[in-house]
Amino acid sequence: MAYPAEKTRPPRASRYLELVADKLAQTEEIFRRHLESDVPFIQMSGEYIFAGGGKRIRPAMLLLCARLLGRDSDEEVTYAAVVELIHNATLIHDDIIDHSELRRGRETVNQRWGNGLTVLLGDWIYTTSMRMAVEHGNIEVIRLLCDGTLRMTEGELLALQRLAAIDLSVDEYLEITQRKTAQLFAAACSVPAVMFPQRLDLLEPLGHYGRSLGICFQLVDDLLDFTGRESELGKPVLSDLKEGRLTLPLILALPRVGAAQRQLVRRVLEDRSFDRVEPQQILEMVEAEGTVDEAYSLAVEHAGEARRALDALPGGDAREALEFAPDFVLNRRS
Amino acid sequence: MAYPAEKTRPPRASRYLELVADKLAQTEEIFRRHLESDVPFIQMSGEYIFAGGGKRIRPAMLLLCARLLGRDSDEEVTYAAVVELIHNATLIHDDIIDHSELRRGRETVNQRWGNGLTVLLGDWIYTTSMRMAVEHGNIEVIRLLCDGTLRMTEGELLALQRLAAIDLSVDEYLEITQRKTAQLFAAACSVPAVMFPQRLDLLEPLGHYGRSLGICFQLVDDLLDFTGRESELGKPVLSDLKEGRLTLPLILALPRVGAAQRQLVRRVLEDRSFDRVEPQQILEMVEAEGTVDEAYSLAVEHAGEARRALDALPGGDAREALEFAPDFVLNRRS
Repeated sequence: MAYPAEKTRPPRASRYLELVADKLAQTEEIFRRHLESDVPFIQMSGEYIFAGGGKRIRPAMLLLCARLLGRDSDEEVTYAAVVELIHNATLIHDDIIDHSELRRGRETVNQRWGNGLTVLLGDWIYTTSMRMAVEHGNIEVIRLLCDGTLRMTEGELLALQRLAAIDLSVDEYLEITQRKTAQLFAAACSVPAVMFPQRLDLLEPLGHYGRSLGICFQLVDDLLDFTGRESELGKPVLSDLKEGRLTLPLILALPRVGAAQRQLVRRVLEDRSFDRVEPQQILEMVEAEGTVDEAYSLAVEHAGEARRALDALPGGDAREALEFAPDFVLNRRS
Repeated sequence: MAYPAEKTRPPRASRYLELVADKLAQTEEIFRRHLESDVPFIQMSGEYIFAGGGKRIRPAMLLLCARLLGRDSDEEVTYAAVVELIHNATLIHDDIIDHSELRRGRETVNQRWGNGLTVLLGDWIYTTSMRMAVEHGNIEVIRLLCDGTLRMTEGELLALQRLAAIDLSVDEYLEITQRKTAQLFAAACSVPAVMFPQRLDLLEPLGHYGRSLGICFQLVDDLLDFTGRESELGKPVLSDLKEGRLTLPLILALPRVGAAQRQLVRRVLEDRSFDRVEPQQILEMVEAEGTVDEAYSLAVEHAGEARRALDALPGGDAREALEFAPDFVLNRRS
């Protein structure tokens, strides 16, 4: 199986990120500063979260879209930090729900400090992100961010209720992905359009771009759970299945394999562990069915759709970077 | 012990609530409508939460303060629903943290549907409340509500870390109460002042009123845990202690009693149960020390402070109602 993550990451990535490197550095600083608090636990766990890092892909996309529209101010930097805080609040609550012990190679907040404090920390970060967005007085941005966050939470709810269902359909899976991941990408990319009311015509194409990129991102994320290495992912391979989530390679494979193989998957979902099944058995099943490649093809399609959405947008270096971003997402290894 | 909850609730309460009865009914409708969703779980649990009712004291205070300032529009009704939704989101997450099984005499959301869905439902309701507040385009109101929510969450965090500490001081307890409960009351009462920028001079007295009333409310809430009846409270007596929270009657009593009695309290806090201690032993301890009455006296002081804050505010029927509210809070039984 010639999995694309084996390719070398193109050197262009850093060149494009260079366009917003200063603003990404400012975003980091704002992100860090807004996790400070006179409540000792918030201060301590905030430092821990900040030190954990992250890909910061949502802020990068927001900043590139702002640059595309010729924007150069502190305002988009604040919003870049806001979307990253929203994303982090989600991860923090997700790790409680999934009983996750590791994230980015380190103990999760819930593992380290327990569920109670972690629920409240997530709440605090969500509200902090909204409070930050208020600073620039732009109510339309807040509306957009609230809507994106609501759709995301709905996606999480649907995911929790349905992703462990052995009869999950591809359509259902894509609907969940669309809400759970793509809507916050769409919001991040659209924020610059609502920052100036005169560019509202760009809201739709930027939203379309972000949504397609978000689906592509999630599909690749799901693939990496099959093809990645624990050392690169910061968590074990097949974590999704172990935590009770079916993703596309398995959803595509399940209707094609025999009852005995389906039973293997069912056992892991039931046990939330690999006590009765070897991970290798699952990996061999999806390899034999070729469904990792099929899922990758679907990710490639969404990458193409993202690129086409850019046709309506102004040219320049930011647009080149946005055109390249889907490749970057397709080729990421972690 | 002549506990005030044994008094009859004054008939004036309903007369004063009558002033905002129509708007409270509209608030209920908006509250209910905003818990509707195309996600089946949100729809179902939203109906469950709405049916559970509540005292709606925060919306009532907000609506009375709006009336005091001569406001009569849909806008304050939306904000009244917003503060009640924020309050409900908090309760939903608190019940996860406290492992509570009962609220208002019914199963809690976490008991019924599990922690995972409940974490996400709370998130959804928090974000929905902010999304609702956006509707009227008043950014200052959103700022105020975010700030109130942040202080409340900080209070919850401090409470979770410190309220089970046998050496908790009265000052620490009051600081926690001030954030955990009083800040959302203060925000609810202040919203009408920021609705019209020309009445910003009233922000401080309304905030002061709400904060004092909120502390009074929490002190009485804590007292009821010692003096109430399970049938009225919808949860067992001494639930706070059982869930690991010391409140003022015990905080005042602990330094005065002997080691053996302190040990009783410590055991309940350790076990999170009354397996080794009889509730009656705890009730007799605080009765002997007279600390329920002392805590009640402190609640009376804060009620007086709330009333004095009204001196700076316009007269009329709404002000009479606000002057009466502290008595209502002091005399409530559930």
